Amino acid sequence: MNATTYTARAHTNIALIKYWGKKDEELILPMNNSLSLTLDRFYTETSVTFDEQLKDDLFLLDGSRENGNKVSKFLDIVRKKAEINIKAKVISQNHVPSTAGLASSASAYAALALAASKAAGLSLDKKELSRLARRGSGSACRSIYGGLVEWQKGTDDQTSFAYPLEMPNNFEITMVALVVNADYKKISSRAGMKRVVETSPYYPAWVQTAAKDLKNIKQAIVERDFETFGEIAEENAMKMHALNMSAHPHFNYLEPNSIKAMQIVEKLRLEGVSCYYTLDAGPNVKVICLKRDVKVIAGTLSDSFGQEKVLVAGPGPAAHLI
Amino acid sequence: MNATTYTARAHTNIALIKYWGKKDEELILPMNNSLSLTLDRFYTETSVTFDEQLKDDLFLLDGSRENGNKVSKFLDIVRKKAEINIKAKVISQNHVPSTAGLASSASAYAALALAASKAAGLSLDKKELSRLARRGSGSACRSIYGGLVEWQKGTDDQTSFAYPLEMPNNFEITMVALVVNADYKKISSRAGMKRVVETSPYYPAWVQTAAKDLKNIKQAIVERDFETFGEIAEENAMKMHALNMSAHPHFNYLEPNSIKAMQIVEKLRLEGVSCYYTLDAGPNVKVICLKRDVKVIAGTLSDSFGQEKVLVAGPGPAAHLI
Repeated sequence: MNATTYTARAHTNIALIKYWGKKDEELILPMNNSLSLTLDRFYTETSVTFDEQLKDDLFLLDGSRENGNKVSKFLDIVRKKAEINIKAKVISQNHVPSTAGLASSASAYAALALAASKAAGLSLDKKELSRLARRGSGSACRSIYGGLVEWQKGTDDQTSFAYPLEMPNNFEITMVALVVNADYKKISSRAGMKRVVETSPYYPAWVQTAAKDLKNIKQAIVERDFETFGEIAEENAMKMHALNMSAHPHFNYLEPNSIKAMQIVEKLRLEGVSCYYTLDAGPNVKVICLKRDVKVIAGTLSDSFGQEKVLVAGPGPAAHLI
Repeated sequence: MNATTYTARAHTNIALIKYWGKKDEELILPMNNSLSLTLDRFYTETSVTFDEQLKDDLFLLDGSRENGNKVSKFLDIVRKKAEINIKAKVISQNHVPSTAGLASSASAYAALALAASKAAGLSLDKKELSRLARRGSGSACRSIYGGLVEWQKGTDDQTSFAYPLEMPNNFEITMVALVVNADYKKISSRAGMKRVVETSPYYPAWVQTAAKDLKNIKQAIVERDFETFGEIAEENAMKMHALNMSAHPHFNYLEPNSIKAMQIVEKLRLEGVSCYYTLDAGPNVKVICLKRDVKVIAGTLSDSFGQEKVLVAGPGPAAHLI
């Protein structure tokens, strides 16, 4: 086998109906379907070379050698599929402003899935790529596609994968991200959602309400009803953060400035600007809006937090080789 | 009937297992049992005179004439019990530092129940007083008693009342209150809990988890296990605030400085100080601790927020005539 290098680029995504809780830790099967928007501004580029000269897998992230246990475990899945037994060199670069705290395992494992499968000689279709990326990080299965994407929870490894949803014409969704804290999370999303599934008395109701939210937001997309779309996304995010507050021990990703930003968004909304917030497993606030309102929203947040903390992103493309 | 004036004093209470949701709006029957600590520092004094010369009920609060519709409705219950048809003058004074935002309908209706029932010629025992106070504001039924108090939800007007729990020796619970915002609430507790009962998908699980929390905190009181006591109170409060975030439309009493204070308490705890927070239907943070730790907790909060924002209260007495 030739030691050919393949390089892939995959974009991060922001969940509008959240993935929060696994029913299978090993296969990464989620408890509920989720829905996301792939973003143009933030992405990971990853090169993979399987090389018989290597004694061990080698993983360089943003120029530094990293502990690659998780990456090696992922490569094992690829090697098994390709029926090879060769170590690989993985070079990965996150293209996210260094202080953004928006780096994501979603873009990382989507890029790795595409580059590694190609380098291993596999030709996976998108569904298979999505299933593979899922094994690295659940939300990575959504970053295989661009635009609006749904992750079907499925019942096993075969049936749990993402697929794209049609983006309506003139539905110019944009995201204004506020970087509240670029530090590492107090509790990883993996550990946080595990604790919630195991201890929150509200969790069974979450699974039901997320299914309802998903159905309704898809209807809002079809109807190009941005207000309903945004309202469902905001409420779904709050219900996810409510789960964390109800866990044992309880935890909370919201920082003082997260609340301040949420209040600013609510005030803008009262003033007639269509904007809604969502937060993932961290304190950064992502404002969902239409392209026409980006300027006023980014300006208002910049006034309070500084321009360098405010980043704008639109819908991004599918993972691709470069 | 002589126009005799009776004056009663009743103290506010802070719920450690929250009352959040009614099963009967008119009778104010709660969905779950709750548990509170009556506080020595904050109280209401209320004088009531039934006077045949009056054409209408008259209500003076802190020296100003107030719209007394709610008070008159409450007096109607007293008049019906006493079988009289005389208007009353009610003069009420809140003894809460004016910027505290800690004034409460609990102390108000407990004092009114005691003063009005006496002035109307009734001799109610404490259980009957508690039932009467409940009709004005649910949590007022707890302020009839001092120290630790449980409100038994009951199934009807007769069976829904509070009673005192034994306070163990050397269990010196104290509260350090941080005034985050003295303004009126964005959404009243009455409206907030109603919305939660009607719309939160998590509400049925709350009712169950509150019952479990109550059982466990009572056991911790008997065992004088302050750490378990505080932990249950804090988690119960977070589960109550999580309900608000899951309502439709969602709402949140937490302000940026609430989160900041909660983080300070968590940090103190990591440093070995036994302290736990709770928040009612507002942004003010109440820290539950032992008397021995008041100085370090009040000092740390004062450093961040200013001494005038920090108030200390211990267990308070039952409602009484003065």
